[in-house]
Amino acid sequence: MAITRLPSAGFSITIRIAVTADASAIGRLTTCVGEAGAIVTALDVVDSDPTNVIVDLTCDTADATHADQVVGALTALDGVDVRKVSDRTFLLHLGGKIEVSPKVALRNRDELSRAYTPGVARVCMAIAENPSDARRLTIKRNTVAVVSDGSAVLGLGNLGPAASLPVMEGKAALFKRFGGVDAWPVVLDTQDTDEIVSIVKAIAPAYGGINLEDIAAPRCFEIEARLREALDIPVFHDDQHGTAICVLAALTNALRVVGKKLSDVRVVVSGAGAAGTAIMKLLLRQGVGDIIAYDRQGALHRGLTGLNSAWQWLADNTNAGNYDGDLAGAVRGADVFIGVSAPNLLTGDDIATMADDAIVFALANPDPEVDPREARKHAAVVATGRSDQPNQINNVLAFPGVFRGMLDAHAEEFTEEMAIAAARAIADVVGAEKINPTVIVPSVFDARVAPAVAAAVRAAAQNPASAPTATPAADSGPADLPEVAASASATP
Amino acid sequence: MAITRLPSAGFSITIRIAVTADASAIGRLTTCVGEAGAIVTALDVVDSDPTNVIVDLTCDTADATHADQVVGALTALDGVDVRKVSDRTFLLHLGGKIEVSPKVALRNRDELSRAYTPGVARVCMAIAENPSDARRLTIKRNTVAVVSDGSAVLGLGNLGPAASLPVMEGKAALFKRFGGVDAWPVVLDTQDTDEIVSIVKAIAPAYGGINLEDIAAPRCFEIEARLREALDIPVFHDDQHGTAICVLAALTNALRVVGKKLSDVRVVVSGAGAAGTAIMKLLLRQGVGDIIAYDRQGALHRGLTGLNSAWQWLADNTNAGNYDGDLAGAVRGADVFIGVSAPNLLTGDDIATMADDAIVFALANPDPEVDPREARKHAAVVATGRSDQPNQINNVLAFPGVFRGMLDAHAEEFTEEMAIAAARAIADVVGAEKINPTVIVPSVFDARVAPAVAAAVRAAAQNPASAPTATPAADSGPADLPEVAASASATP
Repeated sequence: MAITRLPSAGFSITIRIAVTADASAIGRLTTCVGEAGAIVTALDVVDSDPTNVIVDLTCDTADATHADQVVGALTALDGVDVRKVSDRTFLLHLGGKIEVSPKVALRNRDELSRAYTPGVARVCMAIAENPSDARRLTIKRNTVAVVSDGSAVLGLGNLGPAASLPVMEGKAALFKRFGGVDAWPVVLDTQDTDEIVSIVKAIAPAYGGINLEDIAAPRCFEIEARLREALDIPVFHDDQHGTAICVLAALTNALRVVGKKLSDVRVVVSGAGAAGTAIMKLLLRQGVGDIIAYDRQGALHRGLTGLNSAWQWLADNTNAGNYDGDLAGAVRGADVFIGVSAPNLLTGDDIATMADDAIVFALANPDPEVDPREARKHAAVVATGRSDQPNQINNVLAFPGVFRGMLDAHAEEFTEEMAIAAARAIADVVGAEKINPTVIVPSVFDARVAPAVAAAVRAAAQNPASAPTATPAADSGPADLPEVAASASATP
Repeated sequence: MAITRLPSAGFSITIRIAVTADASAIGRLTTCVGEAGAIVTALDVVDSDPTNVIVDLTCDTADATHADQVVGALTALDGVDVRKVSDRTFLLHLGGKIEVSPKVALRNRDELSRAYTPGVARVCMAIAENPSDARRLTIKRNTVAVVSDGSAVLGLGNLGPAASLPVMEGKAALFKRFGGVDAWPVVLDTQDTDEIVSIVKAIAPAYGGINLEDIAAPRCFEIEARLREALDIPVFHDDQHGTAICVLAALTNALRVVGKKLSDVRVVVSGAGAAGTAIMKLLLRQGVGDIIAYDRQGALHRGLTGLNSAWQWLADNTNAGNYDGDLAGAVRGADVFIGVSAPNLLTGDDIATMADDAIVFALANPDPEVDPREARKHAAVVATGRSDQPNQINNVLAFPGVFRGMLDAHAEEFTEEMAIAAARAIADVVGAEKINPTVIVPSVFDARVAPAVAAAVRAAAQNPASAPTATPAADSGPADLPEVAASASATP
């Protein structure tokens, strides 16, 4: 699929090349790279003599195979000697992406005496006497564990804990960059539910929140539920709740674009794993009446047997018409398609059968459920998880602000009210005058997002009754925006 | 005991005081503080008007009770209004002492694409295909877990995980400050040996080493032994091995001062817990032939029954004369007393009964086994764990360099060769021309220590045969120093 082959910074390489220094030498290199389909982003002279030059040529490629092709094309040129190929992504990861830094100076004896022995003993005694002081006098106040068992790493599958570590480090870096939150990767060499639960309970005293990450469904649901029950700090599974918040935010603005209401739309969700299940639960609670859920066994409906409890719940609580046909048939006449599943399940022709002003969120990464360029020919609003397409739905819009708000509020749990408040905050950052079919979510670099989300979550934590969940009427949205709020149950 | 009541920076307070601005006002404040036994370290004007002044007076006090007395004395002065008392140690601990920082910039889409999705996926796949790449491409290369169950926090006892966190954070800060090591506190809400072992095994993939800390004996021995067996990264219990390394280093130079040899001295050790046991094992392996170990039940000897396995081992392998008398009797004629136990077990008169040129290491904190001022009247060399006395034996001399060396060598285990190499490196930093009875160990701020220790440990890791353990003869010491090396078994 052509869309997966665009050059990107994620596959950037730097090639050290020695070449005879005639007038056309550099031009031949860049032309060669361009003809091979890569994009030259930098050219640095490393060394030279009167007849030769050594350059570092940096270019974006589409993937590892493409990078090899580019290097091969350069090697085949006359008078060109390829010395070394460096992968800039790997260079960036060398030695890991986060570090632990003292916030206190330790220059002299006085400073040492206060930060460590003997002064620290009094701080320990104070916490022993009043355990709640740990939130004041230790890192617990600002620190989150990013916990994974490596069982569902990105879209790559069960890679195990060591191979999941680069993702968890990256997540920790994003937490600090976007939310000012200190996050630490906890990758576990076990995939046993009981053991994961007992480990996270045991390590919890140092943390003000738990962010579960890349843990396979349905195990993730039980782990999350048991930890929520056991701990007095918020437990948040980003693959579930982060994604659900971002999808609700994007859908809120997409519905504003097309002038439809949540309570009126028919929704098809492909992928009933961690993300899909959380999305559907949040949409149901926001008043969406008609959802059909798909997974590997087809449409979840009441005729299926042997479902796990998460799927059984969906079969019982969605698909009012008990539809049991294929996905293409389900999207016929639907207002919204949300894919959190696998590549290339639908064609542009399938999208053409949807209702007028259809909304398509094809979020499978790196290859969406439908080619977004085809989908855009027929749908009013199209979003993906890709950074090279309009409307990227990216969890980094949610989790830094959500945890910032929960930590600041000393929240003891993550609630649905917080999720809804966060989604609304993300949606509202775009601003009524800027919403259009290609701009339904803010940029991940929009500095207003995390503070807005944090403020909304903090308000929801401190005053649950004021959160928008409780709004039953259809006229509660910001005055200057088309209405999307819908009826919602008042019980959490 | 007077020695415990000296003012120190660990008990520094800042007192905000409003006072009538007559010529003698400030003088009356500082005189009052001085008469109350505290030491004024700073005086800052906060605000003033023509007749009044508000100052922040900072002073070192001896302990919390003394601080209250100082504040009370100030409050009792005429024309003085004490507004607020801030404890500088607590202020320093607010919000914790370490933070997690990204080492990579995340300013734009390209940087995000390399550090996180989609670029990170390739790094994950590389590690999944070649697990040893985790040491190259993740934080594992430079990261150590500081693990505690809070069961033996400093000398304070079983305070639990939350109250131990300030110590572990401080340790992490020291690791970075002195060794460039990223260390992370792992405080566990369990004191079950099996559970601790399984948790540390599970979290290990993110770490290049495990530093156990403040875990009570004898549980710590089993935890350490089982983790050493299970893991392919070094496991180091600082209370044991860090202390043993520092004691061996100090004893090496103390013996140089008095001109005795390890193989000739008679040693009494008070405290057969984690530290004492490790010290004795290391001394035995270095050729000390005559050691008597004390703990709560008295001298460990072969007439005792019902001992735990650690104490039984000591009873079987020390105390050749099977002495069963009291501690004061044991030190009579002894060359070396090492206390890692409890305050005030011996008097100056007891020290007077030791052999000529006696060496006394009274390391209990904050109150030593014998008043060091009394001990100095009779012993040739006296050391304590206190920062306000000469010859402070402080583990920070060892652990940052030990882990720096092990991480750099990609060591898979901590070995006795490394301990001995580290001790020798610490001892040799002092330099032959600077050793005297008050200088047997370098300052904790001596920047040469950690690199020297790291180099020694790295060499021992990469070439175990070259480590000094294997030296059987008495003439293997540096040529310019009195000899201390002694016979040692060649088996690890």
